[in-house]
Formats: sequence, C-alpha cells, structure tokens
Amino acid sequence: MVSEFKLIEKIKRQFPLEQKNIIGIGDDCAVVKVGKKYLLYSIDSMVQDVHFDINLNSNWDDVGYKAIVRAISDIAAMGGTPEYVLIALALRKDFTEKMFKNLLKGIGLAVRKYGIKLLGGDITSSGVISITVSAIGSCESKPVLRSGAKRGDDIYITGFTGLSSMGLYILKEGIRLRESKIFIDSYKRPTPKIEVGINLIKYANSMIDISDGLVGDLKHILEESKVGAIIEKHLIPVHDIFFKISPNIREIMYEHILNGGDDYELLFTAPPKFREEIYNLSMKLNTKITRIGVIINKGLYIRENSNLLAIKSKSYEHFKLNSI
Amino acid sequence: MVSEFKLIEKIKRQFPLEQKNIIGIGDDCAVVKVGKKYLLYSIDSMVQDVHFDINLNSNWDDVGYKAIVRAISDIAAMGGTPEYVLIALALRKDFTEKMFKNLLKGIGLAVRKYGIKLLGGDITSSGVISITVSAIGSCESKPVLRSGAKRGDDIYITGFTGLSSMGLYILKEGIRLRESKIFIDSYKRPTPKIEVGINLIKYANSMIDISDGLVGDLKHILEESKVGAIIEKHLIPVHDIFFKISPNIREIMYEHILNGGDDYELLFTAPPKFREEIYNLSMKLNTKITRIGVIINKGLYIRENSNLLAIKSKSYEHFKLNSI
Repeated sequence: MVSEFKLIEKIKRQFPLEQKNIIGIGDDCAVVKVGKKYLLYSIDSMVQDVHFDINLNSNWDDVGYKAIVRAISDIAAMGGTPEYVLIALALRKDFTEKMFKNLLKGIGLAVRKYGIKLLGGDITSSGVISITVSAIGSCESKPVLRSGAKRGDDIYITGFTGLSSMGLYILKEGIRLRESKIFIDSYKRPTPKIEVGINLIKYANSMIDISDGLVGDLKHILEESKVGAIIEKHLIPVHDIFFKISPNIREIMYEHILNGGDDYELLFTAPPKFREEIYNLSMKLNTKITRIGVIINKGLYIRENSNLLAIKSKSYEHFKLNSI
Repeated sequence: MVSEFKLIEKIKRQFPLEQKNIIGIGDDCAVVKVGKKYLLYSIDSMVQDVHFDINLNSNWDDVGYKAIVRAISDIAAMGGTPEYVLIALALRKDFTEKMFKNLLKGIGLAVRKYGIKLLGGDITSSGVISITVSAIGSCESKPVLRSGAKRGDDIYITGFTGLSSMGLYILKEGIRLRESKIFIDSYKRPTPKIEVGINLIKYANSMIDISDGLVGDLKHILEESKVGAIIEKHLIPVHDIFFKISPNIREIMYEHILNGGDDYELLFTAPPKFREEIYNLSMKLNTKITRIGVIINKGLYIRENSNLLAIKSKSYEHFKLNSI
C-alpha cells in the first residue's frame, strides 16, 4: 500500500475545492462558512489492532472514550467548539451485549464530559471492529489552519508529549512501574484541549493537534505553511514522571517525547507580539503552554547543546521517523 | 451479536436528544436547525463481504460510486439537498495504487454527478476494507421524517423495487441472461432520488429511502409513526423486464420486489388531498410515482386476490423477513 500522505495528495489533486467559503482536505477539519458561522467537520476511524489492541486497552469503555476524544480533538485543533458526533460502528458477530454496553458507556462518558450530542450513527457487522466518528463543531471567527505559520512565529505546545506513547510502550512490554498509571491513563483516556484551542483563535497563526507525534505534526504545519522550524531541545517540556522511572526507560524518553503519538496536545505558532497574552492565557486556564522554537524559512532543525541537527526524513512514518 | 435494531434502541435510550432544534437517532439523517436552515447529517459504512463482494462488483469504481449514493440517498429520504461528503477509508495493506485510483474514480463520478463536494476524510489500514461516508445536506423547510405518517395517508413508492436485489442474485448465481444488464446496473450504480425528494417535502407526511427492502423500510415508517398499513399487491409496480425473463426466475420475483434491498427509491406517505399534486410532480419530473396502499391504525397487511394477509414478523431480518 502506498503511504497515506501520498494517497491524500492524490485526492487533493483530484477533488479541488475552489469554492469560496470552503476549506477542505488536508487540515484537521473541513470548514464551511454558513452565514457568519464557520462549521467544522472531521472524520476519524479507530480500527482494532491498528489503533487499539483490546488486550492492552482491556476495556471497551476506553476504546469508546478515546474514539470520541480523537474526533473532537480535530475540532479543538482549529479553535472550534465540538457540538455533535455521528458514529459508524463495525462490530464482529461475536461482539457481546456486555462489550456493547461498555463501548456505549465510554462513548457516553466522553460525550457528556465535553458537552456534545450523539446525533446518530450506523451499525454494521465486519470481521474487524472499527469505530468511525464524524465530529461537527463551530467557530464564531475564522478557524486556525495548519497553513498559516509565518517566519518569525514562535512555536508552542500545550502540556507534555510522550506520556501516551510511553503508556502504550509500558502496556506492550508488560513493564510494572509504580508510576505507570499516569502514562497508561494518558494513553487510554487522553484529554482534548478544547478550551485552550478556542482561546488561541485570537493569537495563533497555525495550529494542529498532536496525534502523530510532536515532530510529525510539526512537519504537517511546515508543509502546509511552506516554512521551516528550529526546535530548542532544552525548551521541550519533560514531565517530572519521566525522571522518576528507571534509567533504562529514560534512555528512550526523547523518542516518545518527540515522536510518540496520541497526545492530543495542541501545537501552534503565533507572532512574538502575543507572548504576554499567551502567557496570561496559560495562567488563566491553568494550562501549561511552552514556547519550544521558532518558524524559519525552510528546513527542520533541532538545537541540542548548541549543535543544530537537521531532521532529514521528509515524510513521516509511524515510529520510524528519524534519528535525531 | 444482538440485532442492529435492538442496539439502536439501546443507544436511543442512553443518548436522549431533548434539545430543541435537534432530531436525532432513528431517522435517515440527524437534523440540526441552524438559523432558518435545517442541516442534515448521515453516516453510512460499506464493508467488504458484508455490503459488497469485489468479485461480484468486479470494479472498485462501482464500490466507490455506490458508497456515495448510499450516503446521499439518506439525505434525499428527508427531502434534503446533499452538499458535502467526508470519507473514512479502511484499506488493506495489499490494496494497490490501481485499486485506489479506481475507487477514487467511482467516488469522483458520483460526487460530480450529484453536484456535491468531497470535503475531507481519513485513510487507515485494516484487515477488512470499508468505506464510511458521512454526508451533509440541507433543507430550506422542515425535513420529512419517518415518524410523520398519519392514518388515512396514501402510501407511495418512486420507481421500481427488486431490480437491484435481482441484480445481486444474478451475479451470485452466475446466471446469464440477455436482460441482466438492467438488474446489474441497478445493483452496481443505483440512483438516489434527490430531485423528487426535494419536491416531496411539500406533500409527504413521512418518507424513507428503500435500502432494506420495501416491506422492511415500510416497517421503519410504521414503527416510528406508530401506525399500520395495508399494501395492495396488485398496485405494486413490477418492471417490464421481470416479464421478459425465464419463468423460474419470475417465481421469486415478488421476494425481490417486496424484500430485496439496495433500491434507493423513496417510500413515502401523503394525505389523499395531494393526489393531484403528486401526479403532476411525477409528470413534471418524469419520475414514476405509484400509490400502493394506505396507512391504518395498526398492523401490516398485504391484499392479494381480495385476501388480506398479515405480515407478522415484527423485526426485519435481511432476506429472512416473512412468507407473504
């Protein structure tokens, strides 16, 4: 199979969207302007043994919960307010009523927590279980695109990266740690950054949610904005918990922080004139927001101990990205 | 696995939608009122070896085409105008570029034919190929629901039923007929009844598209409207082509006409006072519209040679419905 990104390029070429008031394929959501309101639409599938392993997740509520979070995080990534979801379930014939009840429980928890409505759906049988969520949201002003980063913009991330991917690693390897819970919770029950996304609409030139990893998603912004970036490694926030675990796990820490996926934090760029406003926003919402680099003309570099290293790999591949 | 309808009942109970301006789970689409406009949302999956068999369909363009038609037919079923689609593709690792090109070709054909825009999507790998389409449409006035049928309403269908299901039967059995093309085309490249749907919004009390079969979908209307129906067998339109094929196939004709799925014709009810208007509409749009029965208080009956037979089976199961 050719890579997902090549396929999306093909689709973009074949289905041009020249129409006014429509921003289509290639961003976190599609945007349609209706009157003065911007409506945001996303669709996202979670497939068994690709996006989740029920033996690791252990519970169908976790799967249902995360399917909702993934979809509404795409709305948050553009500064939108998620409002509705539609769900297409493909279930195996041996899917029991109890499993179904748990799946709905997780969906219900997320739906209520984020104040959205389940509008409808479709249930079908399939040899492979999947949950596809189409999320609908809105913005009162123009949503933040991936393509708006400008040279000189500061690069920021919310929260911490690497926790979720570390959680998956711990589950997969069967590692027993006193500190596991925070990692595993990050993996199983991630938090979409809705409130901060909505507030960033005033300041951010570009934004994306971190689902493919910090470096991978930064690349999406750089490609869409046709710019480059320098990341300061010492500025990247590292969660305390990483320092509490065994040294041999800390060795692979930066692989998770830079390339691990499933964080659902926001990565955005904003002009330096908004530094104070963004700091204040971080205080007001009690949300960690860290400036980690700067947008340049081209290329992608990471500065480590005053060495500037180029991140060469052009196309992102899951967990095989690059040696930084 | 418990039946789809039981599962949907569970979901309806667990996710009540009391909010004003929202009509949710249980109709062809979900409806949200935005300003004076009604926005319609549907989601629909086509799963390999459940909804299509590539060895029978023979071409990925047919699969892509039909995935779009199925989704926008749900919009037509409420009298809406389809505007946009989002597509989630789950593809196997051995899905070739050529297959992908053909799939896109079919999607493109349908999208252009019905004047809609592909807004975005998601591509993932999976062991089972599926195409999930989320369709977005709109209505200027209140859309037609399944739940609006009233006692005394006439029951109508557009076009003919049974052709598509006969097409599938012919493909499956490997039957060679001079007349096969019309059946097989109905199966592979169905036509959503968009124009007639939009025009029926003025007259219809209830409406649905026929995807589960004439009897199966009538039952959906009866259940949602809490009414019954009598169908006049001699009024049900039978396409000429059925009379041209061998007698041993004609024997099973009514099984296809009554219970075959995938027709994407519209089934609707309207007060008798609109008979003339509906006749005129049929002439104006050059679309066959046939009155086939009447809405009564309760029960579902078919009249054949002046015998009234009850259709007993309460819940519809694909191709196992009932002996009429």
